[in-house]
Amino acid sequence: MLNIKTCLLGKLIQIITDIPLMQREADRLREAGKRIVLVPTMGFFHEGHLNLMRLGRKEGDHLVVSIFVNPTQFGPTEDIKAYPRDFERDCAMAESVGVDTVFLPPADAMYTGGYQTYVSLERLPLHLCGLSRPNHFRGVSSVVTKLFHVAKPHTAVFGEKDRQQLIIIRRMVRDLNFDIKIVGGPIVREDDGLAMSSRNFYFSKEERLSAPVLFQTLQAAQKLVEQGERNSRRIIAMAGELILSRPHTRIDYVSICDPETLEDVDQIDKEALMALAVYVGKARLIDNTVLHAVRD
Amino acid sequence: MLNIKTCLLGKLIQIITDIPLMQREADRLREAGKRIVLVPTMGFFHEGHLNLMRLGRKEGDHLVVSIFVNPTQFGPTEDIKAYPRDFERDCAMAESVGVDTVFLPPADAMYTGGYQTYVSLERLPLHLCGLSRPNHFRGVSSVVTKLFHVAKPHTAVFGEKDRQQLIIIRRMVRDLNFDIKIVGGPIVREDDGLAMSSRNFYFSKEERLSAPVLFQTLQAAQKLVEQGERNSRRIIAMAGELILSRPHTRIDYVSICDPETLEDVDQIDKEALMALAVYVGKARLIDNTVLHAVRD
Repeated sequence: MLNIKTCLLGKLIQIITDIPLMQREADRLREAGKRIVLVPTMGFFHEGHLNLMRLGRKEGDHLVVSIFVNPTQFGPTEDIKAYPRDFERDCAMAESVGVDTVFLPPADAMYTGGYQTYVSLERLPLHLCGLSRPNHFRGVSSVVTKLFHVAKPHTAVFGEKDRQQLIIIRRMVRDLNFDIKIVGGPIVREDDGLAMSSRNFYFSKEERLSAPVLFQTLQAAQKLVEQGERNSRRIIAMAGELILSRPHTRIDYVSICDPETLEDVDQIDKEALMALAVYVGKARLIDNTVLHAVRD
Repeated sequence: MLNIKTCLLGKLIQIITDIPLMQREADRLREAGKRIVLVPTMGFFHEGHLNLMRLGRKEGDHLVVSIFVNPTQFGPTEDIKAYPRDFERDCAMAESVGVDTVFLPPADAMYTGGYQTYVSLERLPLHLCGLSRPNHFRGVSSVVTKLFHVAKPHTAVFGEKDRQQLIIIRRMVRDLNFDIKIVGGPIVREDDGLAMSSRNFYFSKEERLSAPVLFQTLQAAQKLVEQGERNSRRIIAMAGELILSRPHTRIDYVSICDPETLEDVDQIDKEALMALAVYVGKARLIDNTVLHAVRD
């Protein structure tokens, strides 16, 4: 059990590792009329995370960031131990954007002996990333449920880069009557358009040069739609060619789908979600945008 | 939307049908420092339900009873429309034991278009009633999760007659970190030992005479254990003979198992759960007891 107030850069940040202690702290805050905001993360922060925290900061009185590299959302071929971690750096960065509490539960407290309960969705995970990562979203929806029950937020913030995750969380919150407002935070990009990701640390210099092709593809698709193209298949064909024209790329999926159900759409009527997963070297990158056929 | 304070027998009972309204009421109670107790039911109350309410009454300041005949826990061959309902009578009975709020959500508000999220356990439903009712417990754990998120109780009360359900809810609460105390209420019986149940209204007079055999079997099993019998198979053989000696009976299962994991036990070391499901005519009855090899 750890509940320390650490002084970083002259300000106080509270670090809680114990689950019941976090619940008591959430109760205390709620009883005092404070609105709790939670930003669930797996740590190793970059500007994308910080932006979610800044967004969260505006949504309530007490900002909790959880850092938990959740084993149940990694597949058998995915190496959880290789996931980058730097707790000291994360705390300093969190403190710099006004985080009040870092919740850092140990894995063996989150999954105790005999653990067997999962929250799962019947249809939304059968698309996009769910196809190549079979139990991933079951792990995500379950751990988010747990974090909601521990931090007891009024509002929770999730990034739009993991668009399928955000759509799944919104559906789960609605279906299970969680009394929590879900806020989506826009994708933060490098100057060349590459979406910020903890996975961007894995690149060779040459691979790094190919990585912006995901964003370039989304931009090219939006341009085609603005020029009147409505046929998803033709846009996807263009996307495939563009991505594979860059070295070290391998396509997992390119999809144009309904932003709510994630079902493929053949024709873009008003708006559609375009989502990509592309391997650049060993790193699997994702990106997405909403294609607008009619500009508002 | 319905939020009326109805006067029954001279006292006030609050009836809420709207989900967000129930959440706001729960928030209001919590902010006022009140402890909320929830007794989830499917209505058509009998003395067993009333006893859970009396137990709940002692556990907190504000007693909520939910009445919801949950479609997702009925199998395709089980007739939800035939499930008995009498709301007026239920409210009068609830009021008589000091219930503050009856929460009565309509089915189409609980399961809106596109509903697809379920809470399920991997192993506990693969025993006892779960074998003959495949999706039953998935429906139960999901609807209880929803009711917990709507009524926001500090404590929830479940009957021990549905022992597998109670064990599943306890496991779910632990696994998903619900900050809710679960209280089990003892089985209430008729004078001849028949466990109270909404299904007891289905009997012919002759069937009714056979129905107490479930309790008699549990008593006979406990007696055997007290006499030194430790072998589950021999106790189950005795149970089968005794049950089938009565007219109109058909056995679904007779099980002696671990009270936490529900896995079969061959030898009764200290204590074991004995659980029965027996058709008497068309009604499927369940009953259970914990067999004690060593009396405390």
